[in-house]
Amino acid sequence: MKALVLEEKGKLALRDFEIPGTLGPRDVRIKTHTVGICGSDVHYYTHGRIGHFVVQEPMVLGHEASGVVLACGDAVVDLKPGDRVCMEPGIPDPTSRASKLGLYNVDPAVRFWATPPVHGCLTPEVIHPATFTYKLPDHVSFAEGAMVEPFAIGMQAALRARIQPGDIAVVTGAGPIGMMVALAALAGGCARVIVADLAQPKLDIIAAYDGIETVNIRNQPLAEAVATATHGWGADVVFECSGAAPAVLHMHELARPGGAIVLVGMPVDPVPVDIVGLQARELRIETVFRYANVYDRALALMASGKVDLTPLISATVPFEDSIAGFDRAAEARDSDVKLQIAMPE
Amino acid sequence: MKALVLEEKGKLALRDFEIPGTLGPRDVRIKTHTVGICGSDVHYYTHGRIGHFVVQEPMVLGHEASGVVLACGDAVVDLKPGDRVCMEPGIPDPTSRASKLGLYNVDPAVRFWATPPVHGCLTPEVIHPATFTYKLPDHVSFAEGAMVEPFAIGMQAALRARIQPGDIAVVTGAGPIGMMVALAALAGGCARVIVADLAQPKLDIIAAYDGIETVNIRNQPLAEAVATATHGWGADVVFECSGAAPAVLHMHELARPGGAIVLVGMPVDPVPVDIVGLQARELRIETVFRYANVYDRALALMASGKVDLTPLISATVPFEDSIAGFDRAAEARDSDVKLQIAMPE
Amino acid sequence: MKALVLEEKGKLALRDFEIPGTLGPRDVRIKTHTVGICGSDVHYYTHGRIGHFVVQEPMVLGHEASGVVLACGDAVVDLKPGDRVCMEPGIPDPTSRASKLGLYNVDPAVRFWATPPVHGCLTPEVIHPATFTYKLPDHVSFAEGAMVEPFAIGMQAALRARIQPGDIAVVTGAGPIGMMVALAALAGGCARVIVADLAQPKLDIIAAYDGIETVNIRNQPLAEAVATATHGWGADVVFECSGAAPAVLHMHELARPGGAIVLVGMPVDPVPVDIVGLQARELRIETVFRYANVYDRALALMASGKVDLTPLISATVPFEDSIAGFDRAAEARDSDVKLQIAMPE
Amino acid sequence: MKALVLEEKGKLALRDFEIPGTLGPRDVRIKTHTVGICGSDVHYYTHGRIGHFVVQEPMVLGHEASGVVLACGDAVVDLKPGDRVCMEPGIPDPTSRASKLGLYNVDPAVRFWATPPVHGCLTPEVIHPATFTYKLPDHVSFAEGAMVEPFAIGMQAALRARIQPGDIAVVTGAGPIGMMVALAALAGGCARVIVADLAQPKLDIIAAYDGIETVNIRNQPLAEAVATATHGWGADVVFECSGAAPAVLHMHELARPGGAIVLVGMPVDPVPVDIVGLQARELRIETVFRYANVYDRALALMASGKVDLTPLISATVPFEDSIAGFDRAAEARDSDVKLQIAMPE
Repeated sequence: MKALVLEEKGKLALRDFEIPGTLGPRDVRIKTHTVGICGSDVHYYTHGRIGHFVVQEPMVLGHEASGVVLACGDAVVDLKPGDRVCMEPGIPDPTSRASKLGLYNVDPAVRFWATPPVHGCLTPEVIHPATFTYKLPDHVSFAEGAMVEPFAIGMQAALRARIQPGDIAVVTGAGPIGMMVALAALAGGCARVIVADLAQPKLDIIAAYDGIETVNIRNQPLAEAVATATHGWGADVVFECSGAAPAVLHMHELARPGGAIVLVGMPVDPVPVDIVGLQARELRIETVFRYANVYDRALALMASGKVDLTPLISATVPFEDSIAGFDRAAEARDSDVKLQIAMPE
Repeated sequence: MKALVLEEKGKLALRDFEIPGTLGPRDVRIKTHTVGICGSDVHYYTHGRIGHFVVQEPMVLGHEASGVVLACGDAVVDLKPGDRVCMEPGIPDPTSRASKLGLYNVDPAVRFWATPPVHGCLTPEVIHPATFTYKLPDHVSFAEGAMVEPFAIGMQAALRARIQPGDIAVVTGAGPIGMMVALAALAGGCARVIVADLAQPKLDIIAAYDGIETVNIRNQPLAEAVATATHGWGADVVFECSGAAPAVLHMHELARPGGAIVLVGMPVDPVPVDIVGLQARELRIETVFRYANVYDRALALMASGKVDLTPLISATVPFEDSIAGFDRAAEARDSDVKLQIAMPE
Repeated sequence: MKALVLEEKGKLALRDFEIPGTLGPRDVRIKTHTVGICGSDVHYYTHGRIGHFVVQEPMVLGHEASGVVLACGDAVVDLKPGDRVCMEPGIPDPTSRASKLGLYNVDPAVRFWATPPVHGCLTPEVIHPATFTYKLPDHVSFAEGAMVEPFAIGMQAALRARIQPGDIAVVTGAGPIGMMVALAALAGGCARVIVADLAQPKLDIIAAYDGIETVNIRNQPLAEAVATATHGWGADVVFECSGAAPAVLHMHELARPGGAIVLVGMPVDPVPVDIVGLQARELRIETVFRYANVYDRALALMASGKVDLTPLISATVPFEDSIAGFDRAAEARDSDVKLQIAMPE
Repeated sequence: MKALVLEEKGKLALRDFEIPGTLGPRDVRIKTHTVGICGSDVHYYTHGRIGHFVVQEPMVLGHEASGVVLACGDAVVDLKPGDRVCMEPGIPDPTSRASKLGLYNVDPAVRFWATPPVHGCLTPEVIHPATFTYKLPDHVSFAEGAMVEPFAIGMQAALRARIQPGDIAVVTGAGPIGMMVALAALAGGCARVIVADLAQPKLDIIAAYDGIETVNIRNQPLAEAVATATHGWGADVVFECSGAAPAVLHMHELARPGGAIVLVGMPVDPVPVDIVGLQARELRIETVFRYANVYDRALALMASGKVDLTPLISATVPFEDSIAGFDRAAEARDSDVKLQIAMPE
């Protein structure tokens, strides 16, 4: 089978590649249909590593996927061949201490697609545990199904925030993840979500959604805009999605007394935090690491029409052009949110 | 000034009546504009009492109100004459133990409009603490402003439920409060809300909202409908809004393992509960008593367009016809959700 | 191997019995050392059933056990032969929806020792998953190790209560589980725990612990005692451990506004609940079903000396006398809290 | 009346001083008995400011106080002359948005004793709102009563941590507040509390309490000690009480996956935080600002004997020697935890 293989930093190949593995009793074999390109895939391509995860052997990329079930292991009861599905790409040890607590995303033993040394799903067929394979509701397309993975990060952020109905939220950073967070927060109970960035094209894309307001921080200090929008009280929840040091340093100024900050953006190095500023409003800070137990919730919101992710799919390229797709993704155009790869029929 | 006075059980009068009181430094004087008729107003009219609250002296009715600020006490800073407002009708002792905890709704000292011996607001002018008087956003009408009070109960239920984004909820009982709860739950983060009742006209009204599904329990067992809708897993949250003994007895069958039930309906007498049934799914049960700290959240959701309560206003009668309005409300027509009284210009 | 077998309702036999099973890669083989007799074991003996769990085939009893590891499957890393351990008796499907959420106790697929048709551990050797086998800290004896299971229920109740440091708690019902709950609540952060019952010998046993107060409800109305102890405010948490209808009907009178009730006792049939009484104080009600993720916490509290369960071990009988032990347990003497069986060396 | 007046930075005077104020209907007049010296009192003395709070006029110091009620305003019902009491030193606007939420500690309008321009209580008589004046239980001495204020910070930290019964906690920094936090955490449900510092005399003081373990970080890396104590899993809760940049930078290494960090220490300037390190374990971070609704809880724990603060009172000086007392406090001896001033009879 062909696969999109990252041979080493900066070098992709679309070539025959056999991912080892057999269909266990609780696994399903899936024909992949659509695979999104994630910033982490691109980062492995351009840098060969993320933190201490280093690409040392050729690795198949891709972890945002939908497809069709081809075959099921003997113990699988909830899925059958022909089912349209999407796949949660992290596989924990279900008997670990973290998994028993329901925190399987922070199980140190988790194996995550396209994170060295684990192969991803940019190949026509994959084997996956049934328990991490989710049926797509009737009105959710394959393209949307491949959006569940990035949206799941937004869902995790919205869950950790413990949004209360009618909250006002601020999202700093309008990259793909910031957009996902904004939409999850809005569908998840916020009355209003204010998204801030300095790239106007990004703001224009997310501003097209009802309930989203935008602030271009080139034009207006964000703290001032938030104070105006909240009559000086501050936002109930601040989602820091930029990973930018100045945003982190001033994030407490955006939150109301007793409010919450969710750290989604990932600054490479330690950044200065104004702890006394956080304390003066007694803020709670949550962090997120991938997601757990949110795929069904994400799909429910998409199926009900409360969340429409299709406007965020900027382009779809055929599998045979996937290297070009990665090169375009590596350009990080402001007008591109998500690029997807259509796998061969 | 004229007021709608409940002279005694069964006897209303629209007559001159002076509610004692002076404008304190932290109070505002308000010209009432619209006042909704609540089931509790009607119950005092038809029964002369609710539980141990007994009408022993003539009492002005009404507690769902919007209006315009006429004058402000010296210490009021956030309001000014001319402001369009709605009023939270319960006034606690702000220094009580419950109030200090933020639970001012359960402060035993709370004084609540139109709850004996406290007069209500069906009179052209009222004096009210500024801290419980909320400005109406520009796009929220007076009629909507008078809907905030009943919607606040729905908001309180949604808050106590601790909805997680993408939850599936069931509401048992499609009376006015059940409808408010359903809309608050949907805006507050649920992906889907299933409303059950046996009166089809009520179900038809609420079914007109996107995201609301209905089940007429004359036609289908609710537990079966919920099981189908949730693939056998059960609802994340069940809002019991009927107060009906059979609904209470079987409510645990609707909830998923680890789910929540919010008891909103108020059965007059103790009713049988299947405690072992609740335990077998380790359900959490929340109760609500009026509301606290939700008016601003309710207004934010209404201003943003996430919640539109105007379809639930069934009729508006002029103040001079308010006795007729109460008589219609006492009929409890299935097609009436909320009747409102337009106060004199 | 010999086992204590419940042949049918009312008939125990100590006889050769082979529990089927082989040592899987993630299992351990354990030599049992001490096994406690639980009320549910006794109930199967005297009634042949609990709810819809009916003894239809001979079944080995016992689920409160400690022992020594004899052998480990190939994939076991945290245990080794010779380790002193205790065992959590419920084994869920780790890939179920409930287990993924961390709620493995409410996984419908859970297999629980000595719950038909699953055999218990009153036999010299058992095979058990390593992930549900916990090492005993150095200062925790085998006898104490066999107390972890009943104490785990108290821990689960204390967890669900969400105790805040300095809470005042009331426990209604001083049976073995009520005592476990009281001790878990006290160690778990309560400043004071008031235990109520009408059997003075039970109250005398638990009153021997520092921090526990008792009320004999034959002598004083409990609501009055709680009001006095809390200056009229009410208890922060009420643990209902009696399962008695009158206790359930009046439980809301014991709690403070905004307080919590944890339903631990299991009334066989539905019992009347005063829902309006619960709502008037806006109480939260939690239920518990066995326990999840508490064994390590229980052991930490026992090892640190914050909880001493040895005074609750009323007698220890040798394995060969275990039928006599069960007959004594069936007497339900007020002065007996826990009877244990010493397995053969 | 005499008072201890901070005339300006570095200059104390014990002189006649009249704090303006009259006894309002909800106030009590209190004869002060014991007043503790807090690090913030000392900091105003030595630096003339804390952050943007600057001493610009002579100010009476002191905010940790107990005393006896001399007189009550007309509306006071829960207190009477002769009552032994302690006083919560921050007075919010009870009708503010934060106060209505129960978060009166973060009300921007709060007036706090000995925080410019508000006078403190180092004077023989003070007037205080009854709602922030708490009766001392019979077995709690005046000296202990004056310890409630610093212990309240520990209680607030323990509350924000949301300790679960049996948690293992780490406290970094064994200053007076770190000690208070450790004791609140232990009484509040932790099985074990590990306190780390580099000053051995401080560690020796806190190590005298059962359940407290200590690590001198001069001798052993703390992360290593915590890993050993928790079998590599990490602490459930980390209380950062040092305010030291290295402790903040590495705090995530001490916590278990899904654990919590409570930021109690107050670094003057922004300090680097390893956000990716926090995210990798999906930690929750809480901050505290003084306290709210904890005085009754603190007193309950002290009255029940679960918390004994008397070993932390290092010395008591008479009021006439209070300048000497402040000078000793300014030395910050490792062997001094709390110095108290005995007010004149």
